[in-house]
Amino acid sequence: MNLPAHVLIREVGPRDGLQNEPEILSTDAKVAMIDALARTGLPRIELTSFVRPDVIPQLSDAAEVLAQVDIPPGVARSVLIPNERGLEKALAHRARFDEINGFLSASESHNRANVNRPVAESLAGLERVFATARAEGLRCEGVISVAFGCPYEGSVDPTRVFELAGALAAAGAEEVAFGDTTGMANPRQVGEFFAAARAALGDGVQLTAHFHNTRGQGLANVLAALEAGCTSFESSVGELGGCPVPKGATGNVATEDVVSMLDEMGVQTGVDLPALLDVARSMQDRLGRPLGSHTLVAGPVDWQNTGV
Amino acid sequence: MNLPAHVLIREVGPRDGLQNEPEILSTDAKVAMIDALARTGLPRIELTSFVRPDVIPQLSDAAEVLAQVDIPPGVARSVLIPNERGLEKALAHRARFDEINGFLSASESHNRANVNRPVAESLAGLERVFATARAEGLRCEGVISVAFGCPYEGSVDPTRVFELAGALAAAGAEEVAFGDTTGMANPRQVGEFFAAARAALGDGVQLTAHFHNTRGQGLANVLAALEAGCTSFESSVGELGGCPVPKGATGNVATEDVVSMLDEMGVQTGVDLPALLDVARSMQDRLGRPLGSHTLVAGPVDWQNTGV
Repeated sequence: MNLPAHVLIREVGPRDGLQNEPEILSTDAKVAMIDALARTGLPRIELTSFVRPDVIPQLSDAAEVLAQVDIPPGVARSVLIPNERGLEKALAHRARFDEINGFLSASESHNRANVNRPVAESLAGLERVFATARAEGLRCEGVISVAFGCPYEGSVDPTRVFELAGALAAAGAEEVAFGDTTGMANPRQVGEFFAAARAALGDGVQLTAHFHNTRGQGLANVLAALEAGCTSFESSVGELGGCPVPKGATGNVATEDVVSMLDEMGVQTGVDLPALLDVARSMQDRLGRPLGSHTLVAGPVDWQNTGV
Repeated sequence: MNLPAHVLIREVGPRDGLQNEPEILSTDAKVAMIDALARTGLPRIELTSFVRPDVIPQLSDAAEVLAQVDIPPGVARSVLIPNERGLEKALAHRARFDEINGFLSASESHNRANVNRPVAESLAGLERVFATARAEGLRCEGVISVAFGCPYEGSVDPTRVFELAGALAAAGAEEVAFGDTTGMANPRQVGEFFAAARAALGDGVQLTAHFHNTRGQGLANVLAALEAGCTSFESSVGELGGCPVPKGATGNVATEDVVSMLDEMGVQTGVDLPALLDVARSMQDRLGRPLGSHTLVAGPVDWQNTGV
């Protein structure tokens, strides 16, 4: 099996994980979560988003979170930026983050449902956002939602996704993440997608996979992407968040499940799995419901602890 | 991605799925479950086991279940046989099944914990059981538990597993199933295992994979086995059953999650996924708790039904 020696994981729990939570966590709770995550060895964390507080009240304290977190050097701090106004707000705290993520959808229908504008308009906005961000010395990531299937339009042509990725790269994105936003990807598709993506986009842009565990295929999709040469992944501690579509479905693949599988396969992540499980457990306690993570229940593979 | 055109699935829910359920289902309920499963297109079903009723009261009505089920022609009916006495009991209903499964563990410690005897003694017993069964025209499957890791001894040497598999084949097993009994397998290991198994055992014996979803890697392990040439799998509707170790952990990978992934990848199973989901849903209703299956919650990938 052709696997890389190590991969990069971006933890998206504090943003993607929390933005759909019915309970709005206190700023202190978010800061404690982020500070703990930042000490597990995770190399990259998405901290928050400067979205409209009336649309996503869960993240209305973005400025306070940025101001209060205590992130060790070497951990890249990302912020999701929806548009130019969001970037302006974020730049008031420029010293507190290193990277921005800007997003659009691979399908017109999803883009319209999500941000009420055509894809071309989102792309034009991102071009301006990335230009300003790069002038500020920020690293830019473009995120393409519903890259593996759209809940309104069905299958999505990978060629169209690669065109958008190429446009984002041309606009200054050093990284493009492909989101399986409603969990429609399967491993064969993922393997073919990442092989073709590399061929279409070359080596100049980092390609990142963002999978959900909607139909239980999250780790199988991670495996397929790994085998196709993808070495960068986004995931969420505790399987928090993601798009709750269909109703009741699980969201992002759990970071600890990804790390557990990679650890067992000898693929290095730099993450201390027990420390990460402590964060997942504390989030489960705080939210007061069982989270979807498997490794949180089963523990790491450690045969001395699993005997009947 | 190198995938087979079609695979065989053996549904083990009625036996492996139910044997750890706290609630003992009525014979009628089991018969209804099996008859429904047998009409989903599943080619093979493990119906029950002739184990000691004081040890596994959940399956004490094995004879009644065999007598009452109504299985369409073409669906292979399997029965788990623990020993010669179990076979003798089963043979009183010879016309009601086609295949037997006999098991032993890959590790001495697990075999002793499970059946209180050395592996060699279990093997000798299986040799007698298979000889009798074959004389009765029954197809024989040997099952090797903890083939990918033992909760008492840790890693298990694949060479030892292949030796046992070879001995089972020599004793008349036309099929050997490798069980990840406590969910310790990872995809890299599984890929290497099945490639080596085929080389060690040749083409004369059918090789079957039996995975658990303990750490969320069930479908990733199925994918790795598929890529290594395995075309036969055992799974349980609703993610029922399996070894509940560690406490609270999920068991067998869900048949509907396997079928959903295979369908999406274009690998044929012959199973009608909506019909299978109906069985899973009825089992969930009957047992009165959410089952671990993902596809049961999310539904099949059908974008017309997943729009927000």
